Parts: sequence; C-alpha cells; structure tokens
Amino acid sequence: MLNKLSAEFFGTFWLVLGGCGSAVLAAAFPGTGIGFLGVAFAFGLTVLTMAYAVGGISGGHFNPAVSLGLAVAGRFDVKDLIPYWIAQVIGAIAAAAVLYLIASGKADFAGVKGFASNGYAELSPGGFGLTAALVTEVVLTAFFIIIILGATSSSVPAGFAPIAIGLGLTLIHLVSIPVTNTSVNPARSTGVALFAQTAALSQLWLFWVAPLVGAVVGATIWKVLLGKE
Amino acid sequence: MLNKLSAEFFGTFWLVLGGCGSAVLAAAFPGTGIGFLGVAFAFGLTVLTMAYAVGGISGGHFNPAVSLGLAVAGRFDVKDLIPYWIAQVIGAIAAAAVLYLIASGKADFAGVKGFASNGYAELSPGGFGLTAALVTEVVLTAFFIIIILGATSSSVPAGFAPIAIGLGLTLIHLVSIPVTNTSVNPARSTGVALFAQTAALSQLWLFWVAPLVGAVVGATIWKVLLGKE
Amino acid sequence: MLNKLSAEFFGTFWLVLGGCGSAVLAAAFPGTGIGFLGVAFAFGLTVLTMAYAVGGISGGHFNPAVSLGLAVAGRFDVKDLIPYWIAQVIGAIAAAAVLYLIASGKADFAGVKGFASNGYAELSPGGFGLTAALVTEVVLTAFFIIIILGATSSSVPAGFAPIAIGLGLTLIHLVSIPVTNTSVNPARSTGVALFAQTAALSQLWLFWVAPLVGAVVGATIWKVLLGKE
Amino acid sequence: MLNKLSAEFFGTFWLVLGGCGSAVLAAAFPGTGIGFLGVAFAFGLTVLTMAYAVGGISGGHFNPAVSLGLAVAGRFDVKDLIPYWIAQVIGAIAAAAVLYLIASGKADFAGVKGFASNGYAELSPGGFGLTAALVTEVVLTAFFIIIILGATSSSVPAGFAPIAIGLGLTLIHLVSIPVTNTSVNPARSTGVALFAQTAALSQLWLFWVAPLVGAVVGATIWKVLLGKE
Repeated sequence: MLNKLSAEFFGTFWLVLGGCGSAVLAAAFPGTGIGFLGVAFAFGLTVLTMAYAVGGISGGHFNPAVSLGLAVAGRFDVKDLIPYWIAQVIGAIAAAAVLYLIASGKADFAGVKGFASNGYAELSPGGFGLTAALVTEVVLTAFFIIIILGATSSSVPAGFAPIAIGLGLTLIHLVSIPVTNTSVNPARSTGVALFAQTAALSQLWLFWVAPLVGAVVGATIWKVLLGKE
Repeated sequence: MLNKLSAEFFGTFWLVLGGCGSAVLAAAFPGTGIGFLGVAFAFGLTVLTMAYAVGGISGGHFNPAVSLGLAVAGRFDVKDLIPYWIAQVIGAIAAAAVLYLIASGKADFAGVKGFASNGYAELSPGGFGLTAALVTEVVLTAFFIIIILGATSSSVPAGFAPIAIGLGLTLIHLVSIPVTNTSVNPARSTGVALFAQTAALSQLWLFWVAPLVGAVVGATIWKVLLGKE
Repeated sequence: MLNKLSAEFFGTFWLVLGGCGSAVLAAAFPGTGIGFLGVAFAFGLTVLTMAYAVGGISGGHFNPAVSLGLAVAGRFDVKDLIPYWIAQVIGAIAAAAVLYLIASGKADFAGVKGFASNGYAELSPGGFGLTAALVTEVVLTAFFIIIILGATSSSVPAGFAPIAIGLGLTLIHLVSIPVTNTSVNPARSTGVALFAQTAALSQLWLFWVAPLVGAVVGATIWKVLLGKE
Repeated sequence: MLNKLSAEFFGTFWLVLGGCGSAVLAAAFPGTGIGFLGVAFAFGLTVLTMAYAVGGISGGHFNPAVSLGLAVAGRFDVKDLIPYWIAQVIGAIAAAAVLYLIASGKADFAGVKGFASNGYAELSPGGFGLTAALVTEVVLTAFFIIIILGATSSSVPAGFAPIAIGLGLTLIHLVSIPVTNTSVNPARSTGVALFAQTAALSQLWLFWVAPLVGAVVGATIWKVLLGKE
C-alpha cells in the first residue's frame, strides 16, 4: 500500500509540476512562449508518462475524481479512496511548493499572481461565469472518466491506455483553459490555490464539487448507457 | 443496438464539444490562443480518445460519412446506417447546445457568430469558393476513409487504429481549416450550423454531399485500386 | 504489383497534398496560422497515417530516397526501384495539381509563388546557401533512413514503425524548414516545383542528389557502423 | 561493444542536431517560427525516433545521466559507463559542429550567440538564478529517470517505452526552457557550449552536476519509495 501511495504522490507531483509549471514558467514567454497549446500538451504528457512509469503500481490515478470514478464503476476499492486522495493532495501541494521555489528565482520576480490556479467569473482566464464553469468541469470530467474506463477495458489491447488517457487530458485543456484554466482534478486545483495571490482558495469548492460530480456521471454513463463494466 | 447508438451519440457529442469547443473558446484567445494547430489536435484527439473508449462497442464512427464508407466497403451493415446517422446527428446537436451554454457564459458575450460552422465563399475562413470547398471535402474524406479502412485491416496489429485515424483527422484539419473550416463529417457540420448566426445552414448541403461522395470514392479506391477488402 | 504502385501513388499524393497543402493554405493564416510547427506535424502525419493504411501493401515508402535506401540495405528489390520512383513522382505531381486547384479558388488569389517548393540561397526560407542546404538534406535523409531501417527491424514490436517514421519526418521538418523548406524526398520536391512561380525547377537537382546520397549514407551506417541488416 | 558505442554516438548526435538544431534554426523564425513548443517536440522526437531505431543495440541512452541512473538502478553495467559517456559526448560535439556549419551558411549570419546552450542567471532565457536552475535540473532529471525505469519495466508491454520516454523529454522542455534552456543531459550541454559565443562553458559544471545528481535521486526513488527494480 505504501508503494501505491508513493506512486500516487509522485504522479500527482509530476502532474502539477509539469502542467502548472509549464503554465507558470513557459506559457506566456515573450515571442516563443508555448501558449495554451503547450500547456495542454504538458498536462497530458504528465499523465501519459507517469501512467507508463507507475501505473502498474497504483493504477495511475493522480486525481481524486479519477479514483472516485473508478470506485463508482467498481474498478477500485472504496476503502482505498481516502488514502489515495490524501497522497494525491499532498503530492500536488509539494509540487506547488517546488514550483514556487523555482518561479521565485526569476530575476524580475513580482509574485506568482494566479499561479495557474483554477477559477470562474473574475478568476476565469476568459471571464466565464459560475454556470459555464460548472457545466464545463462536470461534462469534461465525465468524459475523462469514460475515456479512462474505456481505454483500460479488456476490449483495448494492453499498453495503449496511457496514450488515450494522457491525450484525453490534453484535449480537455485545449477546450477549457479559457473557461476555468481547466481543473477536472481537485488535487491539482488545491495544490496551486494555496500559493495563488488571488481569491482562488475561495473558489476551490467548485473544483472539488464539479469534478467529483462529473466522475459519478461518467461512471454511470459507462455502466448504464454504454452497458459496460 | 441501444448501447451502440449510445456510443455513437457520446462519441459524436465529444467530437463536436472537443473540436468545435476548442475552436470557439480557445483558438483566438489573445496572446496564448491555440490557433488552427490546437483545433486540429483537438478534433483528432476526440476521435483518438473515444475510439479507444467506445470503439469496441459501436466501431467508433462518430461521422455519417464514415458509416457510409464502411458500408460501401462491406465492413458495416447497411441496415444500421440510418440509426447510426440519427444517433450521430443528435449527439452533434446536443454538444452544440452544451457548447452554446458554455460560450454564452462569457462576461462580454456578443453572440456566437460562425460558431465553428463550415462554409465556402463568404463563409470560408480564407475566402475559398465553392469548387475549392467541394474538391477539398471530397478528397480529404476519401483519404480519411482509406486511412480508416487500412488502419483497421488485419495487416495492422490491433490497437493502433485510433492513433492513425485520430491523427489523420488532425492532419485533415491542418490542411483545410482555412478552406471550409474542415468538415469531412456531416453530423459535426449540422450540429453547429443550427446555432450559427450566419448563413451556415444555407450551405449545409455541401457538407453532407461532399463528405458522403468522398466516402464512396475512398471505399472504392480501397477495394478497386488497392485491391483490399 | 499494380496494387503496390497504386499504394505508392496514393501515399505520395497524400504526403504532398497534406504536407505542402498545410504549408500553402494554413501556415501563414493571419493570427491563427499553424506555422512551421503545424507544417512539420502535417508532413509527419501524412506518413504515419498512410504507413498504417497501405504500408502492408507496398511497404509505404512514398519517397524515392526511402526506396533507394531500403534497396541498398537489401530490404527492397532493386528491380522494383524505377517503377516505385515513377509512381511516387506521378502521385506527387497529381497532388500538386489538386493543391493548385484548391489554392487558386481563393477570392484574393494572387499566384502560388513558391508553392511550398524547396530551395537554397535566394529560395531558402531563411537565406541559407548551397553548402548548408546540401549538408542538411544529406544528413537528415541519412538519419531518416536509419530510423526507417531501425523501426522496421525485428527488434521493434510490430505496429510501432509508422509512429517512429512519421514523427521522424516531423522532427526533420522542425529543424530544416528554414534551411531548404525541407525535402528529404525528391518526389515531393518535384511535384510542387513544377507549379512554383519561382526558379525552383532550376534548383531541383539538389533535392534529388542530396536525399539520394543521404539514403546511401544512412543505409551504409546502418549496415557497417551499427552492424545490422 | 563497438556497435553499442556507435549507436550511442549517432543517437546523441541526433538529439543535439535535432533538438538544438530546431532551437537555433527554427524557434524564432519571424512569423511562423516553432517557438519553445516546437523545440520541446523536437528534443522529445529525437529520443523517440532513435530509441526505436537503435534502442535494441545500445539501450538508447544518448545521455550520461541516463546511463548513470540505469547503472544505479542495476539495469546497466557500471564498467560500460565511461565508454558510453565518451561516445555520447563525442556524438554531441560532432552534432554541434555540423549544426555550426549549417547555421553559418545563412546569408546574414552574425555569429551563433548562445547556440542553444544551457545557462542560469544572465544566461537563463528567463533570467532564473542558480538555485532555481539547480532545483529544476535535479528534479526534472529525477523524474526522467523514473519514467525511463518505469516505461522499460516488465509491467509495460514491449514497444511503448520510446513513446513515454521521448514525450517525457518533450514535457521536461515544456516546463524548463525558460529556466535553463533545459539540459537534463550533460552531453547535450557540452556539445553546444563549446561553440557558444557566451560564457556557457563557465556554467557547464552545473549541467553535469545537477543531471547526474538527479539521476541518482530518480533511481533511488524508484528502488526505495516505489519498491521496484
């Protein structure tokens, strides 16, 4: 169990360091910055790489909503849910701390501002309101769970799941960074919100509620409407 | 059969929400927008991810032209064609409605304008005329069908088809977004045309005719000139 | 044999339509154009997709230098070399013609100019001279052949070769579009040079000589220095 | 052994020519340059392609830190470490020389300046200091080793490792080009530092120390905290 929690810790650490790190450090670099497209690839590749690296140890969730969705679908033991969540959140916070250390080493450092945190209304990158944020996070997390359940089902040859799941997270970011800065992952939202110099913490509830609801919706669609296990 | 139609509904929903969603929400975001390159990846990744997720249920068409091409090639039962088309079109419309809901939640929302719909002449992103649009959609759909038939043939090891097909759709978008905003998929064109605040509906015929003709052309090349089944 | 030549025709057609098409139509689209990065992906994905689609028919060369390299390495029958080259060149010319038809359908069409042709000195996108062009094309083609020979060798599990080879071509474009607009493929160079409104034809010799020399170099490194067959 | 060293030479040559070449030649091309995102893909694809091509010969390290990490994890014979390092460094220097030859063939060539070398403080692209550079290089190399050890472990089906490892290197660049121009590879740093027209050589020590320390950290995490071999 300790190895599993360790894998979830390092996987979520990597997700936040790689995904939020690319957003904070490289997205808006003058002239040659990677933009939202680069950030979308970074988030997806954190999951693709660590799912290959440690997926065989812990299942490679790196996300409380994913753990919940898999539990609802009967693919993950409910009694492991809280330990996984704790490892994931601690991993996210640790990564945010390391990222803060790096970001603050910039010569002209002037605070981290949003620090790649998630938000709606005045904290939405494109100024999208609460309803748009809720719908976006619920629907995208639901599909993320469907992709995960499908790509890891027995009808797909072994080995391809990390590609589908990782690039699925890239796709989700391609759509929704302007809306909420994209969460679909409460641990990722929590880690950076603790360091943000905005009101991100006051909006953190939505990035727990919406992904968790979305996970239940996705697992239910998978079982009921798609008739799979 | 209900599970198959459900899979086609959700797959096409995802194609429109992910592909058109990235175009509407993120393509032209100031400074860090994903551009046509990001939209091209988004469309391709919708197919890659859902082909892994539910391809084993319905075959993973998500596109009336694909269903027709597979039927012409003898890989899909003609009697299922109309039910598949209906599920695909309803999925596309539902996704466009959800996307409208999200897009209209923007603080400075001023209508959806083209809403990622397809068009030619004055509705072509780059001002390409009817002939260019027709040729583009027919030829690209034909190759899309060849890629699908080839990648799912017995000469390719199981599991790689979603990569080839999804990235094939990305490639098609890399070429043709400036020409027609890229359809090769009548359901995708229909879903967003219903919400567009342009004359997109009046040009919708082309985005049924050309992809369907292209599908027949592609399936015929596959069987006759390439000598495969 | 006819099916093989047909596969080479359509594969090379797709390489030119997809790769050069993305360059001509989408690379410099104002604000949301795909840039050299998008063109690099387009070229790579043409090979990735058609290698999956028709690689099982013809081997999936789509490039006279690749056919030569495989022949030198003993993987391709020398007596098929000229027929393959002819099918490849005709496919490239046909694709350039279709691309010309599409490109000329633009409302403000003002000629195709370079038409994504290859060149050095005054025809190099970045103003690189003859020596730089020669070295670039020879070295990059040599590595392209090494990647092809290696990825299709028995030490790599079946199915991965199109990914390695296609993304290898993407990589080659990421480096060398500014130098020569990237050829490594005499058929691709010939197809568009015929339509270019520059002196591209007068420089076409280099884009036959350098890739063919590079192919021999690559196959020789593979056999002699790497000790493989 | 000679074939192994040859494979490491050509693999590292390709990593530097492709990765640093894209940075020097194409990253900042006016209007259509590939930016840091394109450079990140280029570095990753050098490893992806050559790992498929020659990974079966030498293991496909192309990086002294990787060789060390694998040795610490017990996957690589310590007595081969120095020969591998020498082949890697010579390959990197040879590639830098070829790149210099190409780059200097530009009509308006005005020196190579940084030549894609790595640096901190005044040589960091974004002005990040020594501590930020050290932390970044150690942490990212540690995760790179974890990804390599995990993706090549017996729990992952054969054939996927080059995808995970190559795209892992892409991800690492997406995060850290602004910080140090991204090394995680002492050979890559050495090759171009020799040609740089900056004080890059005086900072080269960090890009040996930090990646090598990171490799030991990564291998230790893999064995101790993740409990794998």
